[in-house]
Amino acid sequence: MPTFQTIGKRLPRVDALDKVTGAAQYAADVNLPGQLWGAFVRSPHSHARIKRIDTANAETLSGVKCVITGASLSKDVALSTDDTVHGMKVVQGLFATDEVVYQGEKIAVVVAEDWNTARDGAELVEVEYEVLPALFEVMEAIKPESPKARADAKTITLADGSVLNNLAGEAKGGHGEVEAGFAQADRVFEDWYTIPRVHQLYLEPHAVLAKVDPSGKVIVWTSTQSIFAIRSGIAASLGIPLSKINVIGTTIGGGFGAKFGMIIHPYAVLAAQRTGRPVKLVFSREEEFLDGRPAPGLVMWVKTGVKNDGTITARQAIGYWDTGCTPGASMWATSRIMGVYKIPNIKWEAFSVYTNKPGPAAYRAPGAPQASFASEAQLDKIARTLGLDPVELRLKNMCEDGDGRRPDEKLERVAFKETLKAVAERAGWWERNRKQEAAAGGSDQSRPLTTHHSPLTKRGWGVAIGEWQNGAGPGSAIISISEDGTAHVTYGMVDITGVDTAMAQIAAEAIGLPFADVQIIRTDTDTSPYATGSGGSVVTFSMGNAVKRAAEKVHARLFEIAAHHLECSVGEIEMRDRRLFKISNDDESITVAECAQQSLRTTGGPILETGTFANEPSHPVIAAQIFEVEVDPETGRYWVTKAVNSLDCGRAINPMAVEGQMEGGLVQGLAWGWMEQMEYGDRGNLNASLLDYRLPTTLDLPLISSVIIERESRNGPYGVKGVGEPPIAPGPAALYSALADAVGVEIHDLPITPEKVWRAMRAGA
Amino acid sequence: MPTFQTIGKRLPRVDALDKVTGAAQYAADVNLPGQLWGAFVRSPHSHARIKRIDTANAETLSGVKCVITGASLSKDVALSTDDTVHGMKVVQGLFATDEVVYQGEKIAVVVAEDWNTARDGAELVEVEYEVLPALFEVMEAIKPESPKARADAKTITLADGSVLNNLAGEAKGGHGEVEAGFAQADRVFEDWYTIPRVHQLYLEPHAVLAKVDPSGKVIVWTSTQSIFAIRSGIAASLGIPLSKINVIGTTIGGGFGAKFGMIIHPYAVLAAQRTGRPVKLVFSREEEFLDGRPAPGLVMWVKTGVKNDGTITARQAIGYWDTGCTPGASMWATSRIMGVYKIPNIKWEAFSVYTNKPGPAAYRAPGAPQASFASEAQLDKIARTLGLDPVELRLKNMCEDGDGRRPDEKLERVAFKETLKAVAERAGWWERNRKQEAAAGGSDQSRPLTTHHSPLTKRGWGVAIGEWQNGAGPGSAIISISEDGTAHVTYGMVDITGVDTAMAQIAAEAIGLPFADVQIIRTDTDTSPYATGSGGSVVTFSMGNAVKRAAEKVHARLFEIAAHHLECSVGEIEMRDRRLFKISNDDESITVAECAQQSLRTTGGPILETGTFANEPSHPVIAAQIFEVEVDPETGRYWVTKAVNSLDCGRAINPMAVEGQMEGGLVQGLAWGWMEQMEYGDRGNLNASLLDYRLPTTLDLPLISSVIIERESRNGPYGVKGVGEPPIAPGPAALYSALADAVGVEIHDLPITPEKVWRAMRAGA
Repeated sequence: MPTFQTIGKRLPRVDALDKVTGAAQYAADVNLPGQLWGAFVRSPHSHARIKRIDTANAETLSGVKCVITGASLSKDVALSTDDTVHGMKVVQGLFATDEVVYQGEKIAVVVAEDWNTARDGAELVEVEYEVLPALFEVMEAIKPESPKARADAKTITLADGSVLNNLAGEAKGGHGEVEAGFAQADRVFEDWYTIPRVHQLYLEPHAVLAKVDPSGKVIVWTSTQSIFAIRSGIAASLGIPLSKINVIGTTIGGGFGAKFGMIIHPYAVLAAQRTGRPVKLVFSREEEFLDGRPAPGLVMWVKTGVKNDGTITARQAIGYWDTGCTPGASMWATSRIMGVYKIPNIKWEAFSVYTNKPGPAAYRAPGAPQASFASEAQLDKIARTLGLDPVELRLKNMCEDGDGRRPDEKLERVAFKETLKAVAERAGWWERNRKQEAAAGGSDQSRPLTTHHSPLTKRGWGVAIGEWQNGAGPGSAIISISEDGTAHVTYGMVDITGVDTAMAQIAAEAIGLPFADVQIIRTDTDTSPYATGSGGSVVTFSMGNAVKRAAEKVHARLFEIAAHHLECSVGEIEMRDRRLFKISNDDESITVAECAQQSLRTTGGPILETGTFANEPSHPVIAAQIFEVEVDPETGRYWVTKAVNSLDCGRAINPMAVEGQMEGGLVQGLAWGWMEQMEYGDRGNLNASLLDYRLPTTLDLPLISSVIIERESRNGPYGVKGVGEPPIAPGPAALYSALADAVGVEIHDLPITPEKVWRAMRAGA
Repeated sequence: MPTFQTIGKRLPRVDALDKVTGAAQYAADVNLPGQLWGAFVRSPHSHARIKRIDTANAETLSGVKCVITGASLSKDVALSTDDTVHGMKVVQGLFATDEVVYQGEKIAVVVAEDWNTARDGAELVEVEYEVLPALFEVMEAIKPESPKARADAKTITLADGSVLNNLAGEAKGGHGEVEAGFAQADRVFEDWYTIPRVHQLYLEPHAVLAKVDPSGKVIVWTSTQSIFAIRSGIAASLGIPLSKINVIGTTIGGGFGAKFGMIIHPYAVLAAQRTGRPVKLVFSREEEFLDGRPAPGLVMWVKTGVKNDGTITARQAIGYWDTGCTPGASMWATSRIMGVYKIPNIKWEAFSVYTNKPGPAAYRAPGAPQASFASEAQLDKIARTLGLDPVELRLKNMCEDGDGRRPDEKLERVAFKETLKAVAERAGWWERNRKQEAAAGGSDQSRPLTTHHSPLTKRGWGVAIGEWQNGAGPGSAIISISEDGTAHVTYGMVDITGVDTAMAQIAAEAIGLPFADVQIIRTDTDTSPYATGSGGSVVTFSMGNAVKRAAEKVHARLFEIAAHHLECSVGEIEMRDRRLFKISNDDESITVAECAQQSLRTTGGPILETGTFANEPSHPVIAAQIFEVEVDPETGRYWVTKAVNSLDCGRAINPMAVEGQMEGGLVQGLAWGWMEQMEYGDRGNLNASLLDYRLPTTLDLPLISSVIIERESRNGPYGVKGVGEPPIAPGPAALYSALADAVGVEIHDLPITPEKVWRAMRAGA
């Protein structure tokens, strides 16, 4: 076990003070002299033909500077150069011109001196529609007789002759022979699962402020997970050269995968180009629900063959992903029926289905919570049916180093079993089982738990896992040492959930400086080289490597300067307390500050080092979660009274931050299983407000206990594996499992509302 | 002669568009929400004791947020920690508390909601003074019977028993034996010269906006030549850690050496700390005159021994530098009597003398215009007296490669003679002499010049040189290549007179990209490692090396990526038109953009390279200038009708920019000789406005012809030598020389006003 000075410490977030004092500048807080505001005109219909758009009244409203529609862009095209035409092809997609395919789709943006005038102007834009039938359910949409959700939606005929309507895409995969596998099984289970679309529900809605210099240079302040994605997105959508765009990432109030996209940025840039003044656009919460890009819903069929001892012989799945009006649902996640298990025969098919809703975006482990719910809930059902312990069932089938989930895989440095065992241990799973055995089965009411609800409540425990493998992406870090001996670190990644704190810890460790002496400096796309976005659990793995490499070079340079000054070799020097000492004689030393000052006078020049990273393989990990619920058998209302989770993070750079990720992911997964859903009907998105869209609050939640497993990865800095995403995946299945354990209900249709529990109990009774 | 793609091209300045459209943000243009304004309370007296300061009326004025005086700072000290006390010792020097030693000295700063209220508040601060006698002339100040200009001014007794009062410092140097040298001379000349203090007269007065975050982080927007000097200055004066300060250099409207200092910054930071709100301070033009840090005045005695053939045998000088109320006059410049000549015996002494004026700062080639005037004017007089051509006299004594000005010097790569000959050639000096000889002496009225003034005007020609050697300082450059194949270059130097354009040319040349594909990105002290300031003719030499080194590494990385892609060695590749080709087959190639995109996917990571520089020796250069004047013999009024100049710049990265430096320096030197002077009297600075402080305008000036000499330096990038400073030095002496040639007057007291010419003509007649 290596010893560290800064790695592994529970250090407070470097952005904490700014955030708690209100000093942090979110995108909506940035204001420029002379700035205008924009407001969107949106379709009130989920599907309609646009017959007429009349902007005259809006344009003559005092204070309105311009109204931009798809038609007004086409006029630009006619006037523009060839270069711009290329970009404008994409621009034309920015506004609906002939047909709207979801409620909230943008028809126009009205730009005015202030927000109220822009809103008033938007209301004065007259749009005449011919309403068309709209589709909200995938299983309805795929029917051959259904109307088209959008004019270009395709109908396909499968090999078996069945016809699927409104298809946006399809995928499939697998290995082995599932039919043979099912034939070897003692029991075969077939189930359908339904997972609704949910919103990522970052606290801070989308916001952007755009300015265009007289030279044509575009400067954008925005809340984004990737300043470089926004830069290339603006470049591609508006035909502006990359080098003419600078994107400044402001403090971000959450993103969870949704803040990579272009749903707001090109409009502000267009409006700034048109008016010659800075333009600000800020989504309301209602606009987030209507025009955000949520997680796709899923209807999934899963078939599993299993021997009586719990050995899985084959799994098969078909996933119907609700992709809304544009492709992009993570349908490949259907393959997650493999889990982290040794299943010799796998077959999966996935269909991405158009409906009259906005298109999807990533949401923390995209597709995993949906597919894992189906996969893990069925394993729970199998265990219960076969009378096996659900933890034991999983351990029996689980891979370990040397195994593979597919024939072409050989896993190393994985800790699946350790992670699952750890959560069971922490939760007291085994003690509970022994007590249950002693009490001869059934829901165990004898545990010495404080029941803070009705004494009639039924308790139950559930377990599930979610797997994920962190990605990797390009990034660069630049570190310099100032004359006072402190380090400045820059890179092109946005701080989301503690990035800057982790990077400061890595830099401090590798340079050999105290944490307090490392400062992370926020940059923009102009001052930083390319970096991948803050998402996909890539940050600490990828940028951590870049920072570590730069920091190690700084460390080496300090030793060289000290060796020159102390007239010895670098091997004869040690560093501590901001000073480099001759090992043989503590009286001979030079401070880090003095090294930095000397660098300015020698031919080497200022201490300035870089580290870059592009890609290295990672290892899959699991998050494992155990929930305890207490269910009121009269009403179906239930409480989650215990939540324990574990995660293999390879190396916890900052255990407090890792726990934050674990707790946050657990709550989001639990919320998806328990309360969250975007409801759609004839009038479009029915619960487009936080009054009607239910989320658990702190009062709904138990204290969460987290166990960090550290099985070091090969390529992550100090052994890091990505931690951001896995914890969201197990929640829905663990909740399902706990409710089944408590009151015997098997609810396959998320969210598992009290009403559904009550109905299921009544149906089962 | 190497061939270049971009070096040597007359490319327009990269900041041109922003400047001509008004988009460039100068410090006074930066505004923050909630910002306050400060106004100073200043002493109306040049020397006085402060008996009472009463801020009560100011503090109760509606809109005034605080009034800071020296006394109020002392209160802070009592409350502050030990750390702060250390800084506060310096803070106490920020305001006069007991004694004022120049008119305009700061007594307090009043901070209010707007500028007018701050001004009103400043007028309400009551200060009671006991006026003390003030000193304005160095030759008066050094008299033993004079009062002290400041309480701690010293009186010293020299070796010869003479007593000098009000001394701030002294220096001396030389080589050989001057008395022996004078003994070998046929003629010995002794003269006194008087050079006034002048203001650097940047168009943009000092301005700063300071903000303090809740975390204590100080952010400063300011017009400065060195963001790092301002950072360390604020740190030192206010006891704030370097890492808690970020200095952002805004577009600068001139500095000429004056904008390295702290005359405005700590006050804004203090006020922002006190009020918790951003505070802006902008000097008026009057404040610039009263409280700027101008170039020191000089009274200088020069003695030169010379043989009848023009060979200089010895020179001796004593310089009395008017340093105002603080040390800092460049008294070592007295040594410039050496010029670039082989003078076997040299002796110089210099005294820095306190007077009741603000202290001095650098002004373009600090001390050189003053001392060169004395040195070169006397050489002109010698030539005239001996009947020698002043160009020939200089050439006779001038060093060339292998020579030295001092016994310990061996010059290399100098082009003194070439430079002087070139200006003479361009001006038609030799033809004029031949015509003069043909016309048998006297002022030549026969030349075919267009006389646009009275036909009675007398024409005259003058020549002089000024020497300088560029400095070197630390700097770092960072270059990355974006996915579109364009380069971003960052460094911590402010663009003054074309820095960014020159750096873009060097980067483009060394990478192999078109100039248009290189973008210089402005940074701050947080995002850039240490760089020396934009002054001392160091920039292109020092930062040019850093940029070139980084660019060469980028070039190499591009070739490596291309070699990998094209499956050949780097030697088999050539680069042109944004593309790397296999030399043997033009059909096989990869664009720079594709290289950048590939870098993101390979283990190398983004293309990101750095170059650093600290110090390398440079070579001295001269600027040579020839003026023609036409003098109205009735009034002494005169016009400069011709101005020709030459300069050895080693390598002209951008000849247009080099010419800009040459022309600007020439005009500033000429102005110093012709019109400029800060006049002081019993009421302090008498001409503290641009109405009373005369400057030549474009209407006063002739077209300027410039000859660039390129004798490549050893260590400058592409052979660059520093060009910023030398052109200011020759002007006053060349003007003196031309007037002497035209009407026989020898005016040793700058500026040479028409009145002085008229008086001298009358005295000589």
